[in-house]
Formats: sequence, structure tokens, C-alpha cells
Amino acid sequence: MSGVRHLGKALTLKTINPNLIEAQYAVRGIMAQTAAKIRQDLEAGTGSYPFDEITECHVGNPQALGQKPVSFYRQVLSALVNRELLDSPAFPEGVKARARYYIKKSKGNLHGYSEESGFDFVRQAVAQFLERRDDGIKSDPNRIILTDGASNAIDHCFQAIMSSRDQGVMIPIPQYPLYSALIRLYGLNEVPYYLDEESGWQIKTEDLQASYDVAQAKGIKPRAIVIINPGNPTGQVLTEDTIKKIVEFAHDNQIVIFADEVYQQNIYREDRKFVSFKKVLANMPKPYSANTDLISFNSTSKGILGECGARGGYIEWFNIDPEVETQLHKLKSLKTCANINGQLFIDMMVRPPTEEENGKEVTENFKKERSALFESLKRRSNLVYESMNEMKGITCNKIEGAMYAFPRIHLPEKAIQEAKNQNLEPDLFYTLEALKATGICTVQGSGFKQKPGEYHFRITTLVSEDKLARKMESLKKFNDSFMDKYA
Amino acid sequence: MSGVRHLGKALTLKTINPNLIEAQYAVRGIMAQTAAKIRQDLEAGTGSYPFDEITECHVGNPQALGQKPVSFYRQVLSALVNRELLDSPAFPEGVKARARYYIKKSKGNLHGYSEESGFDFVRQAVAQFLERRDDGIKSDPNRIILTDGASNAIDHCFQAIMSSRDQGVMIPIPQYPLYSALIRLYGLNEVPYYLDEESGWQIKTEDLQASYDVAQAKGIKPRAIVIINPGNPTGQVLTEDTIKKIVEFAHDNQIVIFADEVYQQNIYREDRKFVSFKKVLANMPKPYSANTDLISFNSTSKGILGECGARGGYIEWFNIDPEVETQLHKLKSLKTCANINGQLFIDMMVRPPTEEENGKEVTENFKKERSALFESLKRRSNLVYESMNEMKGITCNKIEGAMYAFPRIHLPEKAIQEAKNQNLEPDLFYTLEALKATGICTVQGSGFKQKPGEYHFRITTLVSEDKLARKMESLKKFNDSFMDKYA
Repeated sequence: MSGVRHLGKALTLKTINPNLIEAQYAVRGIMAQTAAKIRQDLEAGTGSYPFDEITECHVGNPQALGQKPVSFYRQVLSALVNRELLDSPAFPEGVKARARYYIKKSKGNLHGYSEESGFDFVRQAVAQFLERRDDGIKSDPNRIILTDGASNAIDHCFQAIMSSRDQGVMIPIPQYPLYSALIRLYGLNEVPYYLDEESGWQIKTEDLQASYDVAQAKGIKPRAIVIINPGNPTGQVLTEDTIKKIVEFAHDNQIVIFADEVYQQNIYREDRKFVSFKKVLANMPKPYSANTDLISFNSTSKGILGECGARGGYIEWFNIDPEVETQLHKLKSLKTCANINGQLFIDMMVRPPTEEENGKEVTENFKKERSALFESLKRRSNLVYESMNEMKGITCNKIEGAMYAFPRIHLPEKAIQEAKNQNLEPDLFYTLEALKATGICTVQGSGFKQKPGEYHFRITTLVSEDKLARKMESLKKFNDSFMDKYA
Repeated sequence: MSGVRHLGKALTLKTINPNLIEAQYAVRGIMAQTAAKIRQDLEAGTGSYPFDEITECHVGNPQALGQKPVSFYRQVLSALVNRELLDSPAFPEGVKARARYYIKKSKGNLHGYSEESGFDFVRQAVAQFLERRDDGIKSDPNRIILTDGASNAIDHCFQAIMSSRDQGVMIPIPQYPLYSALIRLYGLNEVPYYLDEESGWQIKTEDLQASYDVAQAKGIKPRAIVIINPGNPTGQVLTEDTIKKIVEFAHDNQIVIFADEVYQQNIYREDRKFVSFKKVLANMPKPYSANTDLISFNSTSKGILGECGARGGYIEWFNIDPEVETQLHKLKSLKTCANINGQLFIDMMVRPPTEEENGKEVTENFKKERSALFESLKRRSNLVYESMNEMKGITCNKIEGAMYAFPRIHLPEKAIQEAKNQNLEPDLFYTLEALKATGICTVQGSGFKQKPGEYHFRITTLVSEDKLARKMESLKKFNDSFMDKYA
């Protein structure tokens, strides 16, 4: 080649994946970035703020707010990663028993690559757990894949299943923003269905068909419906009857159900119970029970574990064409097995210690810790709900499950005007002002999508009990003066 | 809706992602599946085989073959996951020092979600390591993303960068099958360039332009060139001069370099040294140094750590358009942070213990363990190379680096005929016969692609030293009688 060519860079916004450019992810967007900047100021001692810490209420990240891990899980993992501990007489025998079980089951290859879809013995344990949970409905370990958290599980299924620009995915509004982001990333179309705030964010199943038909009229083929149960950000717990109607709808329109059930252990309302899509579907008459495609997701990041950094998750499917099953496993083999630590957390989540295996002391201590965590999650969720409804211009549904409140902000016209002057979504204006006044980082409702002209925000219920009341007071003080200012 | 519709399943091979259906991944394909079946037979005591164990030489998975982990890494992790250990006087103080460092750096949020692109303090440590490695060439932590292993890192960049069906990716032949699989998955085109077996699998840089031009003539736009250095499956280590020529080629054709450098610590030939693409590129004159897009990958699964199940990896880039940098980070935020255990392994890989921080005993023990592992990897790699060349009809290049031999099988015509009768690729026929005769699981060369009419297989050099000579004898016995049978 004669002479040096002077060319621009290979990669520019014009050459890379255009779908990525369009994708947005609010939970880790402007609010998180602004909070991170303020934290840097606080640490550096620069800037002047009326608070001394950032309170991270924008992500469901329990341990970041001081939630203590359950000892049993952590003790077992420490003995596995560092086998010297198994020789220590100080280490509880009940814990050693579980560690030795994993060493035996993994046949000397615990921390290398496992089978691509996850350790067979963990997938068997998950299947047994699901059979117990669903009162005997059969679960097949070959229809389970272990993943690096539920986000990875959901991404896996989107990538495997969705294939063309005319396909659509039905998502609840409000929704968890991972879904809208993946829809963009894979070049698909959002097909929204609205949750009903009046009835505690329940799904109005009679609206689903209309939503489907509108999409089809536009040339979009809905291929999947996403259901988040318990809801995120909305916390509602679905009744068996609602689930049945959704199954009928999915079957009759030949679309797959994505059941995001990561909050299945986080239910605080006494008269609500988690019922899985699988259990309801399998107990329905034919053809529904035999012919409705279902894929469900679970995680170690939520529930009582709250082990977000472990990245443990799984996919279970039901009624999926065997040829498609092969492709789901193949995609996982190409992406390499999930991290082993996360796989072991999944096993411990589905197989808590028992007196038989782990002795009375370890088992009772585990139960005590677990129940204290659950009760505290419940108390905090109630306190947030009550606090919200004491604030001017704020209304909030009872939090049935999950880890969030999603209160509605009845914004005065002047506040909306001021937001527009600042070129901000009105609820983002509110959450940014709240952050600057209190250090509490929430997420604007528009990040989750909402009915046009309505405004909300999402706040986690995870601040530790020694601080929560104080933080709620501080938020109330900000809110009430904000409402007065723009009244 | 009146009456029940009887429809088929929502998901079928006709409706799911057609690119996935076409993707293949040989390392976890027929050979691995056949080996798994035989292992089940052996465990159940069914079937009759002339061996009593499967020897997994198909995946670079050191600990599965008995490689002991380095104590320091594991001790630190055990104390982090289970903080009780920090109070134990039996626990080495030098290890506690490192554990306390991580607790401090993570500001009380070690095992929750970290920053989306990975802990800032780990990315800073990686940048400092890269600056030392590359003799002062600057590295920016904001141009580093921590990932769940290198496979995930490579997938990340493919998904972010590649955008349309007319784009191509240049890959070496033979190549690591992840690349051909991702090319299919993202609907792209393979643009092959051949490695030269005669010269020890070096890249003939004068052929690159021809390969590019052929693709372009077919309407394909090459957008990236993948370089694996040290090579997988071929083990060659590139010289500085070769790297320079590749940079010139990439620059002059405005394509991004994907430098897969996961074996950078695995170099066994005394007169070869790892030189990174970044160091070479940054030291070249303008416009090459200022205008050639480079993305490189590293992992905790290879090197001396061999911690495959930790899924630790990172991406570093150089000369990437700032708008594209934002998109690379955004994609990671949407997919959630890498698992924390893997992030901590990355930190320990780039920051080994020092006398100053961890005391003399811990540091010297670490060095001793690490050097024993390296010397053993080197001895085994030489033994495999020598054994291969003692077998009838087998020739094998010296293994300069990585963890594999990729010997050529000079298959007799009768063997090729027999393979065709059985509807098998000839080298798959050979590796399947070897597996059935010896229990040693390798991978057929066709899985990595090779010149038409040539046959190879890949075998890892990771069998433990107490077994390796015996396994090589067993393979020789099979091979020589195979060659005699089909002579």
C-alpha cells in the first residue's frame, strides 16, 4: 500500500448497533449518576449539602443499606472457597456437612466450569423445590438453566426467542425498565398494557386483548407477554383468577408468557399468597395446560437472601417445543456457565438447612435470622407506605409485595411548568429536587413508564430500621415545602 | 372470545431467532456430550469400557483436572464472604490485611450490586497493572469494564458494535469457536484469514489485505479483526513486528482490533515474550497510534489462576470514539454488574500480595505456589508436544503459549472413507474413536475450522503430572493402532 491513509475511527455512532443507542435504563440513569456525583463531593468535602450521606433508594440492593447476610449461606461458601476451614474445630459441624455435600456432588470440580446450563445437582434441587412449591406439579431439571442473576436470565430468553423487527413484547405499564431496554436492544416493539392504580395496580385482564389487537393493527406481532408478580415497581400480588385469565389470553393468542417471579418470597400482606404461573397453568384444563408456552425467572438478589452481587438466577420453562428447548440450552453453552458462587447460592436458597443434615443449632439459628429479616422487610414496607400517605399531594397504594413503593405525585401546575422550563420530565424534576434536599435517591416514574399526565416515583423500602423513620421525615419535610412552594 | 381456539405452541424453530439455530459451539458439542454419556455409564457401572475415567482434555478447565487453587486468593475471599474469620487469631494477618482493604474500598457494600461497569477501585487497579505491564503507556479506568469472564466480555463488544447483516468479522483459522458462534448469533459474516502451520501458526500479515478484499468484493464490510495472542487452539505467540503490521492493516482499512489476550501469562518458550497490542499500537507513529480502534480482553480463568468458575474478566479499550465509549458502558448498565467474586479475583490477579501489605510469609508462599504452578504448566505443555510427535501420522508444532496442542492428523485415505461411511467429519471420527478407546476427550479440528482437506484435534495440556505420561501412552497406543488399522 503506498502512503498512509488518513481515516477516521472505525467505530462511531453511525457504525455501531443502532438498537443500543436507542436503549435507556432509568434505574441506573440520571438519578444514579447525580447521586454518585454528590457522594464524590461529600467524600471530598467539597460542595455544600443539607445532609451528610446519600441514601440509595433507587436500586433494590439490600446489603448496600446495611442488611446483614444470613450466616449459614456465607459460612458454607467460605468453607468451599477455602477448604482449610473444614479442618478447623471452631467451624460449626452443621455448616461443614453442607460444604462436604457440595464437594461430593461436584466430583472434585466445584470451582471450575460446571455443566453449561449449571450443575446438574443444583438443577435437580431447583426442580424439587419447584415441585414442593407448586404442590406436586412436576418440574424437570432439563427444563432449568442457571444464570448470572435474573437480568441475565431474561436477556437470555429475549435473545433466543425474538427474531425480527415486526415482533412485539407486551409489558405492563408501569414496568421494570430492563424490559423496555431489552425491547430496544433487540429491535422489537413495545406493546403496553396498563396496570390499574385504583384497584391496587391489578392487571385488568379484559384490556389485554384490546392492547394486542391495537398492536396487530399496526403490523406488530406480539410474541410474548411479560408479567411481573409480585409487581416491580408496583408491588401488587396477582390472584389465581387473574393468572388464569392471563393464561387464557396468552394461549388464545399463541404468545409465550414471561413470568418474572423474582419477588415470590417478598409478600407482606397477610391475605395475599404467591401462586406461580406454572401451578395455575398446569392445573387448568386442556388445551391451556398442555399448550401454553411459559418461561419463568427467579433470583438470589431479592427474596430474603438479598445477595445481589452473587448474580445467581434461574430460568424454568414449561410447555416449550423440544426443538426450542435444545436451542435455549445451546445459547447457554455458547455463553459459558453461570458463576459458581451464584449457582451455590441458588442451591442454598432452594435447600435451606435441615436438622437432619445440619443439626439443630445451625437450623434454628438460620430460621431465626431469616424470620427476623422477613419481619423487618415487612415493617419497613408498611412504614414507607404510611409515611407516603402522610405527605402533601402524595397517594400510595398498600405495598403487597416486592421491595418498593410507587407513590403518585399530584404535581401542582406550577411545578410542572418549572420542570418544563428546566427541560426535565416533571417527576424527574421532583426526584432531583428531593435528592438535592435530602440525599435520598429515588427514581422518577417516567423511567418505568406511566399513564400520560400522571407522575410517580419509585422508592425502595430497604433503608435500615434505625434510619428509616428519620429519612421518611426528611422526605416529608422536602415534599411538603415543595408542594407549598409550587401550590 | 367464543369457544376455545386450538393453536400450536407459540415458540417453534420457525418463530425463534434464526441466527441462534445456525450457531454452533464445538468445545461443548458432540465430543463433550459423548464423554458425558460415557461418564454416566461409568458411574452407574453400566457399559464396558477399556478405562475407568473420562479425562477432560476438551476444555481449558485446570481445576477440573486437579490444579490446586492459589491459597492467598481463596483465603482472602473466604474472609470476605464470612467476616467472622477476620476475628479468628488462626487466620493469617497478611490475608486479613487484604480482606480489610476490600471492605474499606467497597464502603460497606462489598456483596451488593457494585457500580455497573465494576467497582471503581478494581478498575483503577486494572489500569495501574496495565500501565506497569506496558511500560508506562497510560490506561484509563473509565475505559475498562469488568465482566463475567472473557466470553461475556467478547459477547458484550459483539452486541454493542455489530449492527447489520452486511458486516464481517475477520477471524483466524483455526479459531476459538466462540467467535464463529457469535458471528452467527449476531447475523454477521465470517471473514477468514489462515494461520500458517509451517511457520508455527504465525499470522501471514501479507494475506490479511487479500482476505479483506475478497470479502468486500462479495458485498461484506469487515468491521473488526479478531487476534488471539497467545493463540487458541494454536499456542503461537506473536512478535512485535507482526503486531505492528496488523495495526497498520487495521488502521488502513478502518477496522477495530479485538485483541483476545487471555493467555498473556501462559508463555512457555524462553525466547518469546508477551507484548500487548496496546503497547505496540501506542508506541507507533501517528496516525496509527492515534487513530486505530483497539479493544482487548483478559480473564481470571486462564493464566495461573485457572479460576474458571469465578467468571472474572475485563475489557479495556483504546482510541475509541467518546460517544461509543458511553454506549459500551450503557450496555453494561443494562445487563447489571459482573459478579462480585469475579471482580475480586480480577483485583487479586492484577495486585498480587506484597511484603509491605501482606508480610513476608504470605508473599513468599504466594510466589512459591504461583511459580510451581507455572513450571508445571510448562513441563506438561512440553511433554504433550513431545508425545504428539512420537505418534504415527501425527505432527505437532512446539507449544509457545496457552494451554493446548493442536496436532495435525495425517489421516490415511481408508480412515477418511470410513468416516464418510459413518457420516462424520474425518477428524471427529478420529477423536470419537480416541475417546472410546482411552476415555480422553479432545475436540476435533473441524470445530475450530482448518484448511480444507487438513485434519487436526485440540488437546489441553492440563492433565495432572502424576497422570499425564500414562494418558499420553494410552493415546499413542490408540493412535498407532488406528493408523495401522486404516493404513
